[in-house]
Amino acid sequence: MSEIEIPEDHPRYQSLLTRHRIEEGVNRGITSKQGLIAEGRGEAFDYLLGERTIESADAAERAAAAQLLLADHPVLSVNGNVAALVAPEIVDLAEAVDADIEINLFNRTAERMEAIAAHLRDHGAENVKGLTADGRIPNLSHERAKVDADGIGAADVVLVPLEDGDRAEALGEMGKTEIVIDLNPLSRSAQVAAIPIVDNIIRAIPNITDHARELRTADHDQLAEIVAAFDPEAALAAAEAAIREGELA
Amino acid sequence: MSEIEIPEDHPRYQSLLTRHRIEEGVNRGITSKQGLIAEGRGEAFDYLLGERTIESADAAERAAAAQLLLADHPVLSVNGNVAALVAPEIVDLAEAVDADIEINLFNRTAERMEAIAAHLRDHGAENVKGLTADGRIPNLSHERAKVDADGIGAADVVLVPLEDGDRAEALGEMGKTEIVIDLNPLSRSAQVAAIPIVDNIIRAIPNITDHARELRTADHDQLAEIVAAFDPEAALAAAEAAIREGELA
Repeated sequence: MSEIEIPEDHPRYQSLLTRHRIEEGVNRGITSKQGLIAEGRGEAFDYLLGERTIESADAAERAAAAQLLLADHPVLSVNGNVAALVAPEIVDLAEAVDADIEINLFNRTAERMEAIAAHLRDHGAENVKGLTADGRIPNLSHERAKVDADGIGAADVVLVPLEDGDRAEALGEMGKTEIVIDLNPLSRSAQVAAIPIVDNIIRAIPNITDHARELRTADHDQLAEIVAAFDPEAALAAAEAAIREGELA
Repeated sequence: MSEIEIPEDHPRYQSLLTRHRIEEGVNRGITSKQGLIAEGRGEAFDYLLGERTIESADAAERAAAAQLLLADHPVLSVNGNVAALVAPEIVDLAEAVDADIEINLFNRTAERMEAIAAHLRDHGAENVKGLTADGRIPNLSHERAKVDADGIGAADVVLVPLEDGDRAEALGEMGKTEIVIDLNPLSRSAQVAAIPIVDNIIRAIPNITDHARELRTADHDQLAEIVAAFDPEAALAAAEAAIREGELA
Protein backbone atom coordinates (compact mmCIF):
# COMPACT_ATOMS: atom_id res chain seq x y z
CA MET A 1 0.00 0.00 0.00
CA SER A 2 1.86 3.08 -1.14
CA GLU A 3 -0.74 4.74 -3.32
CA ILE A 4 -0.45 7.94 -1.29
CA GLU A 5 2.63 10.07 -0.71
CA ILE A 6 2.89 9.38 3.01
CA PRO A 7 5.35 7.04 4.73
CA GLU A 8 3.68 3.89 6.07
CA ASP A 9 5.06 4.61 9.55
CA HIS A 10 3.31 7.99 9.71
CA PRO A 11 1.04 7.90 12.80
CA ARG A 12 -1.97 8.95 10.69
CA TYR A 13 -1.09 6.74 7.71
CA GLN A 14 -4.06 4.40 7.95
CA SER A 15 -6.54 7.19 8.49
CA LEU A 16 -5.12 9.22 5.60
CA LEU A 17 -5.09 6.19 3.32
CA THR A 18 -8.71 5.46 4.24
CA ARG A 19 -9.76 8.98 3.38
CA HIS A 20 -7.80 8.94 0.16
CA ARG A 21 -9.49 5.71 -0.93
CA ILE A 22 -12.96 6.92 -0.04
CA GLU A 23 -12.49 10.15 -1.97
CA GLU A 24 -11.22 8.18 -4.95
CA GLY A 25 -14.40 6.12 -4.57
CA VAL A 26 -16.48 9.25 -4.95
CA ASN A 27 -14.48 10.36 -8.00
CA ARG A 28 -15.13 6.97 -9.62
CA GLY A 29 -18.87 6.98 -8.88
CA ILE A 30 -18.51 4.13 -6.37
CA THR A 31 -19.11 5.89 -3.05
CA SER A 32 -22.30 7.84 -2.39
CA LYS A 33 -22.86 10.96 -0.28
CA GLN A 34 -24.42 8.75 2.39
CA GLY A 35 -21.29 6.62 2.16
CA LEU A 36 -19.08 9.60 2.97
CA ILE A 37 -21.17 10.44 6.02
CA ALA A 38 -21.02 6.79 7.12
CA GLU A 39 -17.24 6.89 6.70
CA GLY A 40 -17.09 9.86 9.07
CA ARG A 41 -19.18 8.04 11.68
CA GLY A 42 -16.81 5.11 11.41
CA GLU A 43 -13.80 7.40 11.83
CA ALA A 44 -15.18 8.76 15.09
CA PHE A 45 -15.83 5.29 16.54
CA ASP A 46 -12.42 4.11 15.36
CA TYR A 47 -10.83 7.13 17.02
CA LEU A 48 -12.56 6.18 20.28
CA LEU A 49 -11.36 2.58 19.87
CA GLY A 50 -7.79 3.80 19.50
CA GLU A 51 -7.63 2.92 15.78
CA ARG A 52 -6.51 -0.62 16.57
CA THR A 53 -7.89 -4.15 16.36
CA ILE A 54 -8.89 -4.93 19.92
CA GLU A 55 -8.43 -8.47 21.24
CA SER A 56 -12.13 -9.36 21.02
CA ALA A 57 -12.23 -8.14 17.41
CA ASP A 58 -9.28 -10.35 16.51
CA ALA A 59 -11.13 -13.29 18.08
CA ALA A 60 -14.24 -12.37 16.05
CA GLU A 61 -12.12 -12.21 12.89
CA ARG A 62 -10.75 -15.68 13.62
CA ALA A 63 -14.29 -17.01 14.21
CA ALA A 64 -15.39 -15.35 10.97
CA ALA A 65 -12.59 -17.09 9.08
CA ALA A 66 -13.62 -20.45 10.58
CA GLN A 67 -17.30 -19.81 9.80
CA LEU A 68 -16.52 -18.90 6.18
CA LEU A 69 -14.35 -22.02 5.79
CA LEU A 70 -17.17 -24.17 7.23
CA ALA A 71 -19.79 -22.71 4.90
CA ASP A 72 -21.25 -24.57 1.93
CA HIS A 73 -21.88 -21.36 0.06
CA PRO A 74 -20.30 -18.24 1.58
CA VAL A 75 -20.93 -14.84 0.00
CA LEU A 76 -19.08 -11.56 0.64
CA SER A 77 -21.47 -8.63 0.23
CA VAL A 78 -19.92 -5.45 -1.15
CA ASN A 79 -21.34 -1.92 -1.11
CA GLY A 80 -19.85 1.39 -2.28
CA ASN A 81 -17.68 1.99 0.77
CA VAL A 82 -16.46 -1.60 0.90
CA ALA A 83 -15.46 -1.42 -2.77
CA ALA A 84 -13.71 1.91 -2.32
CA LEU A 85 -11.87 0.88 0.84
CA VAL A 86 -10.90 -2.76 0.41
CA ALA A 87 -11.47 -4.02 -3.14
CA PRO A 88 -8.16 -5.95 -3.45
CA GLU A 89 -8.50 -7.26 0.12
CA ILE A 90 -12.04 -8.56 -0.58
CA VAL A 91 -10.78 -10.37 -3.69
CA ASP A 92 -8.02 -11.98 -1.58
CA LEU A 93 -10.49 -13.08 1.08
CA ALA A 94 -12.90 -14.53 -1.49
CA GLU A 95 -10.06 -16.61 -2.86
CA ALA A 96 -8.87 -17.74 0.59
CA VAL A 97 -12.32 -19.01 1.66
CA ASP A 98 -13.73 -19.84 -1.80
CA ALA A 99 -16.58 -17.32 -1.52
CA ASP A 100 -18.71 -15.44 -4.04
CA ILE A 101 -18.58 -11.66 -4.16
CA GLU A 102 -21.94 -9.92 -4.54
CA ILE A 103 -22.62 -6.21 -4.87
CA ASN A 104 -25.45 -4.86 -2.72
CA LEU A 105 -26.24 -1.19 -2.50
CA PHE A 106 -28.45 0.72 -0.12
CA ASN A 107 -29.15 3.21 -2.90
CA ARG A 108 -29.05 0.96 -5.95
CA THR A 109 -28.48 2.56 -9.33
CA ALA A 110 -27.35 0.81 -12.50
CA GLU A 111 -24.42 3.24 -12.84
CA ARG A 112 -23.05 2.57 -9.36
CA MET A 113 -23.55 -1.21 -9.74
CA GLU A 114 -21.51 -1.12 -12.96
CA ALA A 115 -18.82 1.18 -11.57
CA ILE A 116 -18.34 -1.08 -8.55
CA ALA A 117 -18.30 -4.27 -10.65
CA ALA A 118 -15.65 -2.72 -12.93
CA HIS A 119 -13.59 -1.65 -9.90
CA LEU A 120 -13.73 -5.16 -8.39
CA ARG A 121 -12.77 -6.72 -11.73
CA ASP A 122 -9.84 -4.28 -11.98
CA HIS A 123 -8.66 -5.79 -8.71
CA GLY A 124 -8.92 -9.36 -9.91
CA ALA A 125 -12.51 -10.40 -9.13
CA GLU A 126 -13.57 -12.93 -11.73
CA ASN A 127 -17.22 -13.48 -11.05
CA VAL A 128 -19.04 -10.52 -9.54
CA LYS A 129 -22.65 -11.19 -8.54
CA GLY A 130 -25.51 -8.83 -7.76
CA LEU A 131 -26.20 -7.58 -11.27
CA THR A 132 -28.77 -10.29 -12.15
CA ALA A 133 -31.00 -9.46 -9.17
CA ASP A 134 -33.34 -12.40 -9.74
CA GLY A 135 -33.85 -13.09 -6.02
CA ARG A 136 -35.52 -11.14 -3.21
CA ILE A 137 -35.02 -10.69 0.52
CA PRO A 138 -38.50 -10.80 2.14
CA ASN A 139 -39.74 -7.78 4.15
CA LEU A 140 -37.65 -5.12 2.42
CA SER A 141 -38.72 -2.51 -0.11
CA HIS A 142 -38.22 -3.44 -3.76
CA GLU A 143 -34.81 -1.96 -4.65
CA ARG A 144 -33.19 -2.88 -1.35
CA ALA A 145 -34.52 -6.46 -1.48
CA LYS A 146 -32.73 -7.37 -4.70
CA VAL A 147 -30.14 -10.16 -4.58
CA ASP A 148 -28.87 -12.82 -6.96
CA ALA A 149 -30.79 -16.09 -6.52
CA ASP A 150 -27.56 -18.08 -6.90
CA GLY A 151 -25.59 -15.60 -4.75
CA ILE A 152 -26.88 -14.23 -1.44
CA GLY A 153 -30.20 -15.95 -2.23
CA ALA A 154 -28.53 -19.37 -1.99
CA ALA A 155 -25.86 -18.51 0.60
CA ASP A 156 -25.67 -20.11 4.04
CA VAL A 157 -23.05 -17.68 5.41
CA VAL A 158 -22.91 -14.00 4.43
CA LEU A 159 -20.26 -11.44 5.30
CA VAL A 160 -22.01 -8.05 5.31
CA PRO A 161 -19.57 -5.28 6.13
CA LEU A 162 -20.97 -1.81 6.83
CA GLU A 163 -24.54 -3.05 6.32
CA ASP A 164 -27.63 -1.11 7.35
CA GLY A 165 -29.71 -2.47 10.22
CA ASP A 166 -32.91 -3.30 8.31
CA ARG A 167 -31.12 -5.35 5.74
CA ALA A 168 -28.97 -7.14 8.31
CA GLU A 169 -32.11 -8.04 10.24
CA ALA A 170 -33.96 -9.28 7.15
CA LEU A 171 -31.01 -11.46 6.10
CA GLY A 172 -30.92 -12.98 9.57
CA GLU A 173 -34.63 -13.75 9.36
CA MET A 174 -33.93 -15.66 6.13
CA GLY A 175 -31.77 -18.02 8.20
CA LYS A 176 -28.43 -16.79 6.90
CA THR A 177 -25.52 -16.89 9.31
CA GLU A 178 -24.34 -13.30 9.31
CA ILE A 179 -20.88 -11.91 9.89
CA VAL A 180 -21.10 -8.12 10.28
CA ILE A 181 -18.26 -5.59 10.35
CA ASP A 182 -19.36 -2.36 12.04
CA LEU A 183 -17.46 0.12 14.23
CA ASN A 184 -20.54 0.94 16.34
CA PRO A 185 -21.07 -2.00 18.72
CA LEU A 186 -24.64 -0.93 19.43
CA SER A 187 -25.76 -0.57 15.83
CA ARG A 188 -28.59 -2.88 14.92
CA SER A 189 -26.41 -4.65 12.34
CA ALA A 190 -23.83 -5.54 14.98
CA GLN A 191 -26.58 -6.60 17.40
CA VAL A 192 -28.24 -9.07 15.01
CA ALA A 193 -25.02 -10.68 13.73
CA ALA A 194 -23.95 -14.21 14.64
CA ILE A 195 -20.40 -12.85 14.46
CA PRO A 196 -20.15 -9.07 14.96
CA ILE A 197 -16.72 -7.61 14.22
CA VAL A 198 -16.16 -4.17 15.77
CA ASP A 199 -13.13 -3.05 13.80
CA ASN A 200 -12.15 -0.87 10.88
CA ILE A 201 -12.84 -2.82 7.66
CA ILE A 202 -9.40 -1.81 6.40
CA ARG A 203 -7.85 -3.86 9.23
CA ALA A 204 -10.58 -6.50 9.55
CA ILE A 205 -10.66 -7.99 6.04
CA PRO A 206 -6.90 -8.70 5.71
CA ASN A 207 -6.92 -10.15 9.23
CA ILE A 208 -9.81 -12.52 8.42
CA THR A 209 -7.84 -13.61 5.36
CA ASP A 210 -4.71 -14.22 7.45
CA HIS A 211 -6.70 -16.34 9.90
CA ALA A 212 -8.34 -18.25 7.04
CA ARG A 213 -4.96 -19.06 5.49
CA GLU A 214 -3.67 -20.22 8.86
CA LEU A 215 -6.79 -22.38 9.39
CA ARG A 216 -6.69 -23.90 5.92
CA THR A 217 -5.48 -27.25 7.24
CA ALA A 218 -7.85 -27.35 10.24
CA ASP A 219 -10.55 -30.02 10.11
CA HIS A 220 -14.31 -29.54 10.47
CA ASP A 221 -14.35 -30.15 14.22
CA GLN A 222 -11.56 -27.69 14.92
CA LEU A 223 -13.30 -24.99 12.86
CA ALA A 224 -16.67 -25.71 14.51
CA GLU A 225 -15.04 -25.43 17.92
CA ILE A 226 -13.62 -21.97 17.12
CA VAL A 227 -17.08 -20.80 16.00
CA ALA A 228 -18.82 -22.33 19.05
CA ALA A 229 -16.34 -20.72 21.45
CA PHE A 230 -17.09 -17.25 20.09
CA ASP A 231 -19.58 -15.27 22.20
CA PRO A 232 -21.14 -12.34 20.29
CA GLU A 233 -22.59 -10.62 23.40
CA ALA A 234 -19.22 -10.73 25.16
CA ALA A 235 -17.48 -9.37 22.04
CA LEU A 236 -19.92 -6.46 21.79
CA ALA A 237 -19.57 -5.71 25.50
CA ALA A 238 -15.76 -5.72 25.19
CA ALA A 239 -15.95 -3.32 22.24
CA GLU A 240 -18.28 -0.98 24.11
CA ALA A 241 -15.95 -1.03 27.12
CA ALA A 242 -12.97 -0.22 24.88
CA ILE A 243 -14.84 2.73 23.39
CA ARG A 244 -15.90 4.04 26.79
CA GLU A 245 -12.69 3.44 28.71
CA GLY A 246 -10.03 3.93 26.08
CA GLU A 247 -7.83 6.99 25.76
CA LEU A 248 -9.96 9.59 24.03
CA ALA A 249 -7.04 11.82 23.02
CA MET B 1 -38.40 23.89 9.91
CA SER B 2 -40.54 21.66 7.79
CA GLU B 3 -38.47 21.47 4.63
CA ILE B 4 -38.52 17.66 4.78
CA GLU B 5 -41.52 15.34 4.75
CA ILE B 6 -41.09 14.08 8.29
CA PRO B 7 -43.14 15.13 11.32
CA GLU B 8 -41.16 17.29 13.75
CA ASP B 9 -41.95 14.88 16.60
CA HIS B 10 -40.30 11.95 14.76
CA PRO B 11 -37.56 10.63 17.08
CA ARG B 12 -34.99 10.93 14.27
CA TYR B 13 -36.29 14.27 12.97
CA GLN B 14 -33.24 16.33 13.84
CA SER B 15 -30.80 13.78 12.51
CA LEU B 16 -32.77 13.36 9.27
CA LEU B 17 -33.08 17.13 8.83
CA THR B 18 -29.34 17.50 9.38
CA ARG B 19 -28.56 14.93 6.73
CA HIS B 20 -31.05 16.46 4.33
CA ARG B 21 -29.45 19.88 4.72
CA ILE B 22 -25.92 18.59 4.31
CA GLU B 23 -26.85 16.72 1.12
CA GLU B 24 -28.54 19.84 -0.22
CA GLY B 25 -25.28 21.60 0.60
CA VAL B 26 -23.40 19.19 -1.64
CA ASN B 27 -25.93 19.64 -4.43
CA ARG B 28 -25.45 23.42 -4.25
CA GLY B 29 -21.65 23.24 -4.26
CA ILE B 30 -21.47 24.44 -0.66
CA THR B 31 -20.36 21.31 1.19
CA SER B 32 -17.17 19.45 0.27
CA LYS B 33 -16.38 15.73 0.41
CA GLN B 34 -14.31 16.40 3.53
CA GLY B 35 -17.34 18.20 4.91
CA LEU B 36 -19.51 15.10 4.49
CA ILE B 37 -16.96 12.96 6.33
CA ALA B 38 -16.77 15.58 9.09
CA GLU B 39 -20.57 15.50 9.32
CA GLY B 40 -20.43 11.76 9.91
CA ARG B 41 -17.83 12.14 12.66
CA GLY B 42 -20.10 14.68 14.31
CA GLU B 43 -23.09 12.32 14.03
CA ALA B 44 -21.19 9.61 15.91
CA PHE B 45 -20.19 11.93 18.76
CA ASP B 46 -23.71 13.37 18.91
CA TYR B 47 -25.10 9.83 19.10
CA LEU B 48 -22.81 9.12 22.06
CA LEU B 49 -23.92 12.39 23.70
CA GLY B 50 -27.56 11.31 23.37
CA GLU B 51 -28.32 13.91 20.65
CA ARG B 52 -29.14 16.52 23.26
CA THR B 53 -27.72 19.77 24.62
CA ILE B 54 -26.10 18.73 27.89
CA GLU B 55 -26.19 21.15 30.82
CA SER B 56 -22.55 22.22 30.47
CA ALA B 57 -23.12 22.96 26.77
CA ASP B 58 -26.09 25.15 27.59
CA ALA B 59 -23.89 27.05 30.08
CA ALA B 60 -21.22 27.40 27.37
CA GLU B 61 -23.85 28.72 24.95
CA ARG B 62 -24.95 31.30 27.52
CA ALA B 63 -21.32 32.35 28.10
CA ALA B 64 -20.85 32.57 24.32
CA ALA B 65 -23.86 34.86 24.04
CA ALA B 66 -22.49 37.08 26.81
CA GLN B 67 -19.01 37.12 25.21
CA LEU B 68 -20.43 38.07 21.81
CA LEU B 69 -22.52 40.87 23.38
CA LEU B 70 -19.44 42.19 25.21
CA ALA B 71 -17.30 42.20 22.06
CA ASP B 72 -16.32 45.37 20.22
CA HIS B 73 -16.14 43.54 16.91
CA PRO B 74 -17.53 40.00 16.94
CA VAL B 75 -17.31 37.86 13.79
CA LEU B 76 -19.14 34.59 13.03
CA SER B 77 -16.95 32.38 10.84
CA VAL B 78 -18.84 30.24 8.33
CA ASN B 79 -17.55 27.23 6.39
CA GLY B 80 -19.35 24.87 3.99
CA ASN B 81 -20.97 22.71 6.65
CA VAL B 82 -22.02 25.68 8.76
CA ALA B 83 -23.64 27.30 5.71
CA ALA B 84 -25.41 24.09 4.73
CA LEU B 85 -26.64 23.30 8.25
CA VAL B 86 -27.53 26.63 9.84
CA ALA B 87 -27.54 29.52 7.34
CA PRO B 88 -30.78 31.15 8.60
CA GLU B 89 -29.78 30.55 12.23
CA ILE B 90 -26.38 32.23 11.69
CA VAL B 91 -28.08 35.24 10.14
CA ASP B 92 -30.39 35.46 13.21
CA LEU B 93 -27.45 35.22 15.60
CA ALA B 94 -25.47 37.88 13.72
CA GLU B 95 -28.43 40.21 14.07
CA ALA B 96 -28.97 39.42 17.77
CA VAL B 97 -25.34 40.19 18.73
CA ASP B 98 -24.54 42.69 15.94
CA ALA B 99 -21.76 40.53 14.47
CA ASP B 100 -20.16 40.27 11.04
CA ILE B 101 -20.45 37.04 9.07
CA GLU B 102 -17.26 35.90 7.31
CA ILE B 103 -16.78 32.86 5.09
CA ASN B 104 -13.67 30.81 5.77
CA LEU B 105 -12.98 27.56 3.99
CA PHE B 106 -10.48 24.83 4.71
CA ASN B 107 -10.37 24.10 0.98
CA ARG B 108 -10.92 27.55 -0.47
CA THR B 109 -12.11 27.82 -4.06
CA ALA B 110 -13.71 30.85 -5.71
CA GLU B 111 -16.75 28.73 -6.69
CA ARG B 112 -17.47 27.53 -3.17
CA MET B 113 -16.90 31.00 -1.70
CA GLU B 114 -19.46 32.42 -4.14
CA ALA B 115 -21.97 29.57 -3.64
CA ILE B 116 -21.82 30.04 0.13
CA ALA B 117 -22.11 33.82 -0.07
CA ALA B 118 -25.17 33.46 -2.33
CA HIS B 119 -26.70 30.92 0.06
CA LEU B 120 -26.18 33.22 3.06
CA ARG B 121 -27.64 36.18 1.15
CA ASP B 122 -30.66 34.01 0.22
CA HIS B 123 -31.20 33.63 3.95
CA GLY B 124 -31.03 37.34 4.66
CA ALA B 125 -27.33 38.05 5.25
CA GLU B 126 -26.65 41.60 4.08
CA ASN B 127 -22.92 41.96 4.33
CA VAL B 128 -20.97 38.73 3.84
CA LYS B 129 -17.22 39.03 4.42
CA GLY B 130 -14.37 36.74 3.43
CA LEU B 131 -14.30 37.45 -0.29
CA THR B 132 -11.84 40.36 -0.12
CA ALA B 133 -9.17 38.29 1.64
CA ASP B 134 -6.85 41.26 2.21
CA GLY B 135 -5.69 40.04 5.63
CA ARG B 136 -3.61 37.06 6.78
CA ILE B 137 -3.49 34.79 9.83
CA PRO B 138 0.21 34.27 10.69
CA ASN B 139 1.66 30.72 10.70
CA LEU B 140 -0.79 29.16 8.23
CA SER B 141 -0.26 28.22 4.60
CA HIS B 142 -1.34 30.79 2.04
CA GLU B 143 -4.90 29.75 1.13
CA ARG B 144 -5.91 28.84 4.69
CA ALA B 145 -4.47 32.07 6.11
CA LYS B 146 -6.77 34.37 4.11
CA VAL B 147 -9.20 36.58 6.02
CA ASP B 148 -10.77 40.00 5.53
CA ALA B 149 -8.67 42.71 7.21
CA ASP B 150 -11.83 44.46 8.42
CA GLY B 151 -13.52 41.13 9.35
CA ILE B 152 -11.72 38.38 11.27
CA GLY B 153 -8.52 40.45 10.89
CA ALA B 154 -10.01 43.19 13.08
CA ALA B 155 -12.23 41.02 15.31
CA ASP B 156 -11.76 40.71 19.07
CA VAL B 157 -14.20 37.77 19.46
CA VAL B 158 -14.63 35.05 16.82
CA LEU B 159 -17.18 32.25 16.73
CA VAL B 160 -15.57 29.40 14.77
CA PRO B 161 -17.94 26.44 14.52
CA LEU B 162 -16.55 23.18 13.15
CA GLU B 163 -13.08 24.71 12.73
CA ASP B 164 -9.95 22.69 12.10
CA GLY B 165 -7.34 22.56 14.88
CA ASP B 166 -4.50 24.41 13.14
CA ARG B 167 -6.63 27.36 12.27
CA ALA B 168 -8.23 27.52 15.71
CA GLU B 169 -4.78 27.52 17.28
CA ALA B 170 -3.45 30.22 14.95
CA LEU B 171 -6.46 32.47 15.63
CA GLY B 172 -5.90 32.05 19.37
CA GLU B 173 -2.25 33.05 18.93
CA MET B 174 -3.42 36.28 17.25
CA GLY B 175 -5.09 37.17 20.55
CA LYS B 176 -8.68 36.58 19.38
CA THR B 177 -11.12 35.30 21.99
CA GLU B 178 -12.41 32.11 20.39
CA ILE B 179 -15.77 30.42 20.78
CA VAL B 180 -15.61 26.96 19.20
CA ILE B 181 -18.47 24.56 18.47
CA ASP B 182 -17.21 20.98 18.13
CA LEU B 183 -18.80 17.65 19.09
CA ASN B 184 -15.42 16.08 19.96
CA PRO B 185 -14.41 17.48 23.35
CA LEU B 186 -10.80 16.41 22.85
CA SER B 187 -10.33 17.91 19.40
CA ARG B 188 -7.61 20.54 19.29
CA SER B 189 -10.15 23.21 18.33
CA ALA B 190 -12.20 22.55 21.45
CA GLN B 191 -9.05 22.44 23.58
CA VAL B 192 -7.73 25.84 22.49
CA ALA B 193 -11.06 27.69 22.74
CA ALA B 194 -11.84 30.25 25.44
CA ILE B 195 -15.42 28.95 25.22
CA PRO B 196 -15.70 25.41 23.81
CA ILE B 197 -19.26 24.32 23.03
CA VAL B 198 -19.66 20.54 22.75
CA ASP B 199 -23.02 20.38 21.02
CA ASN B 200 -24.56 19.90 17.60
CA ILE B 201 -24.38 23.19 15.73
CA ILE B 202 -28.02 22.77 14.73
CA ARG B 203 -28.98 23.04 18.41
CA ALA B 204 -26.14 25.33 19.54
CA ILE B 205 -26.61 28.36 17.27
CA PRO B 206 -30.34 28.94 17.98
CA ASN B 207 -29.66 28.45 21.68
CA ILE B 208 -26.87 31.06 21.69
CA THR B 209 -29.30 33.42 19.95
CA ASP B 210 -32.01 32.75 22.56
CA HIS B 211 -29.55 33.48 25.37
CA ALA B 212 -28.36 36.65 23.60
CA ARG B 213 -31.93 37.94 23.25
CA GLU B 214 -32.58 37.21 26.91
CA LEU B 215 -29.35 38.99 27.92
CA ARG B 216 -30.00 42.02 25.73
CA THR B 217 -30.83 44.20 28.72
CA ALA B 218 -27.99 42.92 30.92
CA ASP B 219 -25.26 45.47 31.69
CA HIS B 220 -21.51 45.07 31.09
CA ASP B 221 -20.80 43.75 34.60
CA GLN B 222 -23.52 41.12 34.44
CA LEU B 223 -22.24 39.88 31.06
CA ALA B 224 -18.62 39.89 32.27
CA GLU B 225 -19.66 37.87 35.31
CA ILE B 226 -21.30 35.19 33.16
CA VAL B 227 -18.14 34.91 31.04
CA ALA B 228 -15.84 34.83 34.09
CA ALA B 229 -17.92 32.12 35.75
CA PHE B 230 -17.55 29.81 32.74
CA ASP B 231 -14.81 27.18 33.13
CA PRO B 232 -13.70 25.68 29.80
CA GLU B 233 -11.81 22.74 31.35
CA ALA B 234 -14.82 21.78 33.48
CA ALA B 235 -17.12 22.03 30.44
CA LEU B 236 -14.85 19.76 28.37
CA ALA B 237 -14.60 17.27 31.25
CA ALA B 238 -18.39 17.21 31.60
CA ALA B 239 -18.80 16.58 27.88
CA GLU B 240 -16.26 13.78 27.93
CA ALA B 241 -18.04 12.21 30.91
CA ALA B 242 -21.40 12.44 29.09
CA ILE B 243 -19.89 10.69 26.05
CA ARG B 244 -18.35 7.96 28.18
CA GLU B 245 -21.18 7.38 30.61
CA GLY B 246 -24.27 8.16 28.54
CA GLU B 247 -26.66 5.58 27.14
CA LEU B 248 -24.98 4.29 24.01
CA ALA B 249 -28.12 2.69 22.57
